[in-house]
Amino acid sequence: MQKKSLRLKPVVAVDIGGSKMIVALFSGEGRMLAIKVLPTLAQEGVDSAIERLCSMINEILSGNNLSPSECGAICIASAGAVDTVRGVVETASPHLPGWTNIPLADIIYKRMGVPTYLINDASAAALGEQRYGVGKGIKNLVLLTLGTGIGGGIIIDGKLYLGTHTAAGELGHMTVQEGGPKCGCGKNGCLEIFASGTDIARYARERIRNGEKSSLIDSVGEELDKITSEMVGKAAQNGDKLSKDIIAKAAYYLGIGLVNIVNAFDPEMVIIGGGMSALGDMLIGTGRRMVAAQAFSKSARKTSIVIGKLGNEAGVYGTAAYALDMKRKA
Amino acid sequence: MQKKSLRLKPVVAVDIGGSKMIVALFSGEGRMLAIKVLPTLAQEGVDSAIERLCSMINEILSGNNLSPSECGAICIASAGAVDTVRGVVETASPHLPGWTNIPLADIIYKRMGVPTYLINDASAAALGEQRYGVGKGIKNLVLLTLGTGIGGGIIIDGKLYLGTHTAAGELGHMTVQEGGPKCGCGKNGCLEIFASGTDIARYARERIRNGEKSSLIDSVGEELDKITSEMVGKAAQNGDKLSKDIIAKAAYYLGIGLVNIVNAFDPEMVIIGGGMSALGDMLIGTGRRMVAAQAFSKSARKTSIVIGKLGNEAGVYGTAAYALDMKRKA
Repeated sequence: MQKKSLRLKPVVAVDIGGSKMIVALFSGEGRMLAIKVLPTLAQEGVDSAIERLCSMINEILSGNNLSPSECGAICIASAGAVDTVRGVVETASPHLPGWTNIPLADIIYKRMGVPTYLINDASAAALGEQRYGVGKGIKNLVLLTLGTGIGGGIIIDGKLYLGTHTAAGELGHMTVQEGGPKCGCGKNGCLEIFASGTDIARYARERIRNGEKSSLIDSVGEELDKITSEMVGKAAQNGDKLSKDIIAKAAYYLGIGLVNIVNAFDPEMVIIGGGMSALGDMLIGTGRRMVAAQAFSKSARKTSIVIGKLGNEAGVYGTAAYALDMKRKA
Repeated sequence: MQKKSLRLKPVVAVDIGGSKMIVALFSGEGRMLAIKVLPTLAQEGVDSAIERLCSMINEILSGNNLSPSECGAICIASAGAVDTVRGVVETASPHLPGWTNIPLADIIYKRMGVPTYLINDASAAALGEQRYGVGKGIKNLVLLTLGTGIGGGIIIDGKLYLGTHTAAGELGHMTVQEGGPKCGCGKNGCLEIFASGTDIARYARERIRNGEKSSLIDSVGEELDKITSEMVGKAAQNGDKLSKDIIAKAAYYLGIGLVNIVNAFDPEMVIIGGGMSALGDMLIGTGRRMVAAQAFSKSARKTSIVIGKLGNEAGVYGTAAYALDMKRKA
């Protein structure tokens, strides 16, 4: 009997976020060969984004002398609630208006002729950090991505845990303040409304409009809409009082979420990823102290709370790992 | 080669709660043969409880014509944070004062001469309902016990999930109201402080002391300390306005917790057990509606929220299942 060859074709991994799309090519052995970033331009609609995405996939393949038929799989990580089994972006993320009930896997398969998978972006990031990053070899971990929104991914017993409807890990929509501000998901007081990049930038704009002083004004002048969470983070690191205050508040609510996560999952590690994670200890120091002081189990108080190692690329790394796993099983 | 015999000796399953201890004898095939209940009398201290527990174990064995050497294992489910690997009750449950760093498995093993295991009581209840109860055959489920305190147990992929330090599932200590009332665990605004039996009875006493009218006064007169959560539940079912209000408040915070649990775990089913679960729909109706309206994923909104089938015996059923699993592996 001949042993089945494990040689796999290269795969394309895509990560669609609220603000940008990342497209990467991986070898069948899981090595990244190329990576491209393009803006999502969510406001231009789904068709436009898919159009530009397919062009980019063709570009990255041809740039590496590959035809679509030489590509083993395309795997797309998307924000929002994703039905991995049917390949459908089900509930629009508040940050991807219009992406509701989009059969994305089918659409891409029909256009590219390549088997296409779909997973949630934060689940992908969790798998990425566990296979390639700071969580390498760890059996039980939870990852939170703090970007445009807040997503979560869960690894249990070394495997990606997706839940019954592939909807597990929506940790950004954990109520941490009953009756708190209204979140894009329709519920009140979600972690996301306190600690996502979108809301951090919004708090800065609102407080400046209400007359508070900030060095952010030096950067954007009257055009307060230009304030981004990255700018708030930088200003906080440079000592701007308003920005420090906003980041401290986000860090505190993140801490409440982290204690809840440690109490629920007792993971070996919680990884913070996404754009906001660039703030490092300024973002997670408070949460680390809260977990060390407040987790119910004394042993669980030792849980490592760390910043991801792969930055914004965690999603495509995990997406590629997922696609290669699926091909191995096939 | 001879097939290893799977015939197992009977096991004793114990469930130590904040108010009572249940001791049950199970056959090696997992059939319950006998069950006894005795009060924990937590205020009399750990030694007294262990003394009475050992007498009861001896009594149930001899009552079934068994000597300790004919017993395959003792398995104890305890409230509080439990180190299952070392067999130590680690963090005292707020409802078991003094039960801190008690090497319970060793103590019982030394006294009884029978291999002894220890697990968390709500984890045991989750396993019980999944093997014998309403969750039979379900792969991913979460159980909440609403009793003296609030505990949680998690089944992932058909197996009990205990986490890295066997401390997973502490869902009663999920912050649902930032800055809310102080919980016995030291943190503020935990689910437990709003919906546990202890707190439901306390709210009734406080509000009556503050002058509110209630049919509960007819039952206890001046002795408000005699008010129990069961009495509040019964009075609510009989239309007592104060009691209905207190149960409605507990049900609402339970609903917030349930939405968080569904968002995090996307389980097939959430089971509500413990003494308060006798209230049925009055307790979980609100949570069902909240999950159906607020869970992030539209698919996860269909998650079944049900009352456990095994009542207060879920813990001993699961404890026996755990002990028999351990013996099968040994």
